Amino acid sequence: MERIDKRRNTDLRPVSFQCGFQSHPAGSVLVTFGGTRVVCAVSVEDAVPRWMKEQGKSGGWITAEYQMLPSATETRTEREAVRGKLSGRSSEIQRLIGRSLRAAVDLEKLPGMTFHIDCDVIDADGGTRCASITGASVALELAAKKLMAEGKLTEWPLLNRVAAVSVGLLQGEGLLDLCYVEDSAADVDMNVIMTDAGRFVELQGSGEEATFGDDDLTTLLGLAKKGLKEIFALQEAAIKSYKI
Amino acid sequence: MERIDKRRNTDLRPVSFQCGFQSHPAGSVLVTFGGTRVVCAVSVEDAVPRWMKEQGKSGGWITAEYQMLPSATETRTEREAVRGKLSGRSSEIQRLIGRSLRAAVDLEKLPGMTFHIDCDVIDADGGTRCASITGASVALELAAKKLMAEGKLTEWPLLNRVAAVSVGLLQGEGLLDLCYVEDSAADVDMNVIMTDAGRFVELQGSGEEATFGDDDLTTLLGLAKKGLKEIFALQEAAIKSYKI
Amino acid sequence: MERIDKRRNTDLRPVSFQCGFQSHPAGSVLVTFGGTRVVCAVSVEDAVPRWMKEQGKSGGWITAEYQMLPSATETRTEREAVRGKLSGRSSEIQRLIGRSLRAAVDLEKLPGMTFHIDCDVIDADGGTRCASITGASVALELAAKKLMAEGKLTEWPLLNRVAAVSVGLLQGEGLLDLCYVEDSAADVDMNVIMTDAGRFVELQGSGEEATFGDDDLTTLLGLAKKGLKEIFALQEAAIKSYKI
Amino acid sequence: MERIDKRRNTDLRPVSFQCGFQSHPAGSVLVTFGGTRVVCAVSVEDAVPRWMKEQGKSGGWITAEYQMLPSATETRTEREAVRGKLSGRSSEIQRLIGRSLRAAVDLEKLPGMTFHIDCDVIDADGGTRCASITGASVALELAAKKLMAEGKLTEWPLLNRVAAVSVGLLQGEGLLDLCYVEDSAADVDMNVIMTDAGRFVELQGSGEEATFGDDDLTTLLGLAKKGLKEIFALQEAAIKSYKI
Amino acid sequence: MERIDKRRNTDLRPVSFQCGFQSHPAGSVLVTFGGTRVVCAVSVEDAVPRWMKEQGKSGGWITAEYQMLPSATETRTEREAVRGKLSGRSSEIQRLIGRSLRAAVDLEKLPGMTFHIDCDVIDADGGTRCASITGASVALELAAKKLMAEGKLTEWPLLNRVAAVSVGLLQGEGLLDLCYVEDSAADVDMNVIMTDAGRFVELQGSGEEATFGDDDLTTLLGLAKKGLKEIFALQEAAIKSYKI
Amino acid sequence: MERIDKRRNTDLRPVSFQCGFQSHPAGSVLVTFGGTRVVCAVSVEDAVPRWMKEQGKSGGWITAEYQMLPSATETRTEREAVRGKLSGRSSEIQRLIGRSLRAAVDLEKLPGMTFHIDCDVIDADGGTRCASITGASVALELAAKKLMAEGKLTEWPLLNRVAAVSVGLLQGEGLLDLCYVEDSAADVDMNVIMTDAGRFVELQGSGEEATFGDDDLTTLLGLAKKGLKEIFALQEAAIKSYKI
Repeated sequence: MERIDKRRNTDLRPVSFQCGFQSHPAGSVLVTFGGTRVVCAVSVEDAVPRWMKEQGKSGGWITAEYQMLPSATETRTEREAVRGKLSGRSSEIQRLIGRSLRAAVDLEKLPGMTFHIDCDVIDADGGTRCASITGASVALELAAKKLMAEGKLTEWPLLNRVAAVSVGLLQGEGLLDLCYVEDSAADVDMNVIMTDAGRFVELQGSGEEATFGDDDLTTLLGLAKKGLKEIFALQEAAIKSYKI
Repeated sequence: MERIDKRRNTDLRPVSFQCGFQSHPAGSVLVTFGGTRVVCAVSVEDAVPRWMKEQGKSGGWITAEYQMLPSATETRTEREAVRGKLSGRSSEIQRLIGRSLRAAVDLEKLPGMTFHIDCDVIDADGGTRCASITGASVALELAAKKLMAEGKLTEWPLLNRVAAVSVGLLQGEGLLDLCYVEDSAADVDMNVIMTDAGRFVELQGSGEEATFGDDDLTTLLGLAKKGLKEIFALQEAAIKSYKI
Repeated sequence: MERIDKRRNTDLRPVSFQCGFQSHPAGSVLVTFGGTRVVCAVSVEDAVPRWMKEQGKSGGWITAEYQMLPSATETRTEREAVRGKLSGRSSEIQRLIGRSLRAAVDLEKLPGMTFHIDCDVIDADGGTRCASITGASVALELAAKKLMAEGKLTEWPLLNRVAAVSVGLLQGEGLLDLCYVEDSAADVDMNVIMTDAGRFVELQGSGEEATFGDDDLTTLLGLAKKGLKEIFALQEAAIKSYKI
Repeated sequence: MERIDKRRNTDLRPVSFQCGFQSHPAGSVLVTFGGTRVVCAVSVEDAVPRWMKEQGKSGGWITAEYQMLPSATETRTEREAVRGKLSGRSSEIQRLIGRSLRAAVDLEKLPGMTFHIDCDVIDADGGTRCASITGASVALELAAKKLMAEGKLTEWPLLNRVAAVSVGLLQGEGLLDLCYVEDSAADVDMNVIMTDAGRFVELQGSGEEATFGDDDLTTLLGLAKKGLKEIFALQEAAIKSYKI
Repeated sequence: MERIDKRRNTDLRPVSFQCGFQSHPAGSVLVTFGGTRVVCAVSVEDAVPRWMKEQGKSGGWITAEYQMLPSATETRTEREAVRGKLSGRSSEIQRLIGRSLRAAVDLEKLPGMTFHIDCDVIDADGGTRCASITGASVALELAAKKLMAEGKLTEWPLLNRVAAVSVGLLQGEGLLDLCYVEDSAADVDMNVIMTDAGRFVELQGSGEEATFGDDDLTTLLGLAKKGLKEIFALQEAAIKSYKI
Repeated sequence: MERIDKRRNTDLRPVSFQCGFQSHPAGSVLVTFGGTRVVCAVSVEDAVPRWMKEQGKSGGWITAEYQMLPSATETRTEREAVRGKLSGRSSEIQRLIGRSLRAAVDLEKLPGMTFHIDCDVIDADGGTRCASITGASVALELAAKKLMAEGKLTEWPLLNRVAAVSVGLLQGEGLLDLCYVEDSAADVDMNVIMTDAGRFVELQGSGEEATFGDDDLTTLLGLAKKGLKEIFALQEAAIKSYKI
């Protein structure tokens, strides 16, 4: 089986990061995974959510929001602000992004602050949640650097970098980094989120109208680790080459 | 470490099924996982969602909704109908329930029908999404039996039974079937959904403020499989002993 | 005219109370009026509504919410949390429940507290608002007992028990405790809420496409009083036999 | 006890009807009960609600909506369109208005039509729901006359006129037609809706923090009937003197 | 071309003001522009919006809301409180009303107060936003007078009177004060809001499916000024002749 | 007075167009006005709005939606999809964009189609509505070209190009193309939308807490025309140099 864009099963799509994409947020990146492009921004608020105050919790918080521009999809998607509510899909994705980033940060070192991660999809071609998490990790690091430089943070809060990639089973073959056409046809779809220390942050495997066995799981996790290693190297390079 | 209810790490809580709990739906079960109790109902509608008609898709559909009674939790939870929208958590859980059940059904054999699964939590003590999926599989089977008996279905639509259980890591130990107190304290929480043929339907592992390694994954999956085997036996017994 | 379930016109359906149905709320009852079953819970919050603070009102408050499980009705009912708002019917019923219970309580003796009554209908076969009020009175008493035992209340706050029953005119005959089929066909429908001291709390008589005269009113009130007397005896027995 | 506006307990406030208050609707009245003023309009749509079509029901339908101008109350009331939803109070009142008017009309004689009743309160000083029903009955009759004249209705659809009045118990005395100050202080409040043939349409008696006995009921119904008789005479006069 | 109501192109419709139309608000006017009638009310709240406090802004605030009664239009308009949100049109108009009135008031002289302007359209026949602004200016002046008399305001806050009128191009001719039929057919529609000192407050010219040139602009502004001069005289007379 | 970015009063900020910014929509542009950047997309749907069908209107339709990324502003803006409704500001702007573009198109030449314009603000530094209209005109032309090339349109539908610019009065001086800081401080703010044939499409002048005279109007219109002439040249160049 040949992939639609001629990649080998174990190839990522071209992945890149345009740091400092927006002018206002503390950290901002336009992340590209092939035809998928997402603006990831980190805005810092000098306050924590009410529930933290009520529970007397110290430290800070990280929360995420995810949305697609209506024009990001092949057929225009109705705007959620017009429908008056977030779709279940968006809600699920933004909860995942928030959890994933919090797992890699020492929240005690963001005292009294909320970091708002905004992931807005410019072009969608599969893997938007993985691109969002991967870009958000970069934006978060840029924001942390900026706040350290300004003296607003006094200790480095990031424990790890985080990245995510999708893998899937299609016609019995394991594929790395599915594009939209592949994703729609896949029997099994798995999103693997890891730290650059090689540990899992989240693992979400799902067979909408299929199931998978232990051996499939092994194959898929192997593919994901291979791809994530490459993505971590690209994150590293992007951050190093960007002067705030 | 001793568990709060004296169970061994590899023990399930008492699991039971009260079939025929409600009078109107085609299938209805009150499922119990220790202190967690969920009413699972399957109501059958003689129509398919609009998007299926628009896409010219044959067969039927299965969809799920999940909610907690406000009084199901230790501190009363605000009613989602009063807030005017589903929480992100409910939305995510009901999407999971729907996907999990669809994976075990041949939708072509539900021609022109929608099966509505309603999971309403009476008492919440951890693992409500797993109890919901496990109970929904039983309610679905009861509904299918009833419709076969009435001649409304002509072919048996269920490919497998489905069940789910939560496993987690707490202070370095793997635990089966976490109650609420354990779940709140766990470093890693994983929901494993399988068919009675021993294949994965969904796998959702998450470390909110922690990460996990390959060995942890192996431990957790082992625990889950052990628990699910016992649950499938209890499902079997409950269904066999219930006369429609 | 023979009633669908062979009852005489002056007969109640079997009425029963399963006290302590849920594990978390201060008081909880599953009340049954024939085919109608409602979970009634009372959860206690250590705060009063904002409007009470703003108006400098002393004492506490009692408020109620009412909803049906979607699977409680013969044809599945759309979930109000999904529609994003309470139906007019639910809103009207929960206002009635709240008013009825407040009329039987000395709110000054609930200092700084809100008692949340949640009535969730498991099975609907007519008379759900009457069953809700009747069950809520029992749940409220269980909650008050528990709080007295814990020393959180220092004076007994309940002035009376409250119960409700529906009566109606169908083909010229007065009927006690209408089931759904009767209710749908009735010309006049009246809900009578009284205290166990024999006084009215609420009286709601309505002829959707009919009217009624003074003599009909006399007949209906007589039937209601007869039924309520029996219900008060059942409440008494249920509460006496339940150890908190 | 002297009433705030010097009326005797058995006196109505000045009641009047300004027919043809608006220019567009088929029937329109500005009804006044003392300091309470409500615009009641009837607009006719050449279609019936979807549920009527789905149920194959013949005839037409009457539905009502009720709202207060924010500036109608002593302290400005927040606009429901801004809050994004109807209050429970408005929802309950408009359901009552709709039921009351439908009880007095032969819906079969409104073939394929929906009559929309809009009651918008200009000034609120107690009894707005009763003024609304009373005014709506006049507006409905004006609309029916107009449609008969235009040949859009072929048979006279109104069975009766309908009117409503509030009565209440305050410091042990029965009062007719309560103004806002009296209504706020009343122990028991009852809305009585009758036809001009002397039959009950709706009866809603309620003691928010009090109860009432049989004798109170007798007193209140007597007062209501006295007041309604006078109101029917005023309706008659207003309609007679208005040329469409 | 003859206008539908025989007016000359440079004629206003009959404009009048019924001061003190409602009983509760500090200022209230029923303003009439031909077939268009709007209730304009000013209610005073002893608090400022939260954003003013947060920004440490001194003085007071004026805000406006605009809505049509459903029965105000030839074909009944759906109620915005029922749809659950304000239409874009209403939202735009009420923002315009608020801005226009604020431009004519010294907000520093309303210390700690919010003036709520409510414009509710009774009958709509074109020009409702202009009538609303024109009436609101009168209601505001009545409210200011009342508060000065009561000593709640210590300095006169109004800098100017404000009025508005619509002008348009129809079949190449400039028309003053368009009624609904003219407005619907006009190629260009312009709302001109001025102070009685002859200065512009707002200018909104729009050609939905047409454009206009400099000469058209000159014509339209000339017409508007002519009409506004007459309206200011009528405002003056109405206010002078009304005793609070 | 020196402008914050050293421009002369009659200078535009750097204006540019990145055509083909997104991959899916028929036309897409990233438009830049200094620090303001907006993604403008045109997606084509093969259907018209329901109201057009109901009114039997021929041709097609153009509608617009406008939103800011939360991270587009200096202080993060709350997401409208999370608040559950569009702000009044967004609603007003998108209505303006839609009207402005429709004025320059022959809708009869878009038979049975809806052109959805989406303007999503990446960076906001004043003048976002003007940038949106200006970019939307380019995106619309790109989309029309594409559809002509594909044979989906048979006649060229665009009558004119459209562009917009803001002008304002600050400390008595007229300024062209205000940035955010200038806009916030301006006494009078005017948005001028014209066709490249030199005719007005919309004119919106507003003094929030100020007013303006005839001479100011003349000054502001002169500045706007000067700026628009330059913008039309840049539009022309951008479109010419872009190969679809």
